[in-house]
Amino acid sequence: VTTGELTQTPQTTVRRAERASYDRELAHAILDEGLVAHVGFVVDERPFVIPMVYGRIDDTLYLHGAPGTRILRTLTGGEGRRAAPVCVTVTLLDALVLAKSQMHHSANYRSVVVLGAVRRVRGEEAERALTAIVDHALPGRSAQARPPDAGELRRTAVLALPIDEASVKVRTGGPVDDEADLALPVWAGIIPLTTVRGEQVEMVQAPEGFPA
Amino acid sequence: VTTGELTQTPQTTVRRAERASYDRELAHAILDEGLVAHVGFVVDERPFVIPMVYGRIDDTLYLHGAPGTRILRTLTGGEGRRAAPVCVTVTLLDALVLAKSQMHHSANYRSVVVLGAVRRVRGEEAERALTAIVDHALPGRSAQARPPDAGELRRTAVLALPIDEASVKVRTGGPVDDEADLALPVWAGIIPLTTVRGEQVEMVQAPEGFPA
Repeated sequence: VTTGELTQTPQTTVRRAERASYDRELAHAILDEGLVAHVGFVVDERPFVIPMVYGRIDDTLYLHGAPGTRILRTLTGGEGRRAAPVCVTVTLLDALVLAKSQMHHSANYRSVVVLGAVRRVRGEEAERALTAIVDHALPGRSAQARPPDAGELRRTAVLALPIDEASVKVRTGGPVDDEADLALPVWAGIIPLTTVRGEQVEMVQAPEGFPA
Repeated sequence: VTTGELTQTPQTTVRRAERASYDRELAHAILDEGLVAHVGFVVDERPFVIPMVYGRIDDTLYLHGAPGTRILRTLTGGEGRRAAPVCVTVTLLDALVLAKSQMHHSANYRSVVVLGAVRRVRGEEAERALTAIVDHALPGRSAQARPPDAGELRRTAVLALPIDEASVKVRTGGPVDDEADLALPVWAGIIPLTTVRGEQVEMVQAPEGFPA
């Protein structure tokens, strides 16, 4: 794993500098805590944003999907086309921030934006990536469930994106009102938000033709 | 409010048709339950995806921001440029789906993708939109906090996007394994995920220069 700073480019430079970070470990921690990435790509000059699960190994973020989908065909290029640029964003919403004035209402959040181009990976790296995607949602799960067989691997495209040209944005703390508003008799503070995992619900799958 | 079907275009046609819906009420319900939208736009042929809060009034989704930011300048056009196309995606993650095989692991989710171009709104519509954005996170909140004054309104760009060229994707239920895997001694089922609002934490803001 590379430590230290992400690569800051004009594209990843955050305008509100007080919220910006280019710390790799922080980016990794946010990516590990998130469950869904919003993946942006361009087709015919139009943007598309699709939610996808993902995994991380060291400095690489992995996505997967069926090779024939629009997003996979776009991101991997092929047929003489170059691999299209991608933007992968993961956001953790930590709190609603309620100020005395409407304009200073805000949210506490941690987000990572990763830019770049993916490469399609195969063989052992693809298998490790798929394991990472399964274990990302539930650590250790890959050791329990049946691993993919040759046919399943063939029907799954695995994409790797370097976590390098990336930026982190973080907002923490309470509301920041204008001084003139501080005396207003309005409740101000935060409402924490957390993603809670409920109790596991076991589900028995009936074979086809099983009487209902 | 328009009822019935969203406008289905080649761009919004979902490939896995069994998960697709073009129902307006369902799209509105998902948008109302979500708190963060991931907003995609294109600059120099590269995609960017930024998390933003939003509000909804009837068939219109509203975003807001400082007029000088890259995303605002891109989406509103100006200086002879056309308004750039946008993609606004909202995803609710409902459960992790654990199958007996790694490849059939999945997630239950509800997502909305809205395509189009924004128009910048001003005056009374902008004020109603900002109220909707504040009330979206906490219904009724706008009646408590100080409304924006003329200067704040001038410094805030409000963007409207029709919720029309849009699609909904929903996955529900348990894992669907291959029949050959059903006898494997692997726990299968779902882990429900919910976003929980914690207790409100009041925060007192000290005026500048207040002794610590």
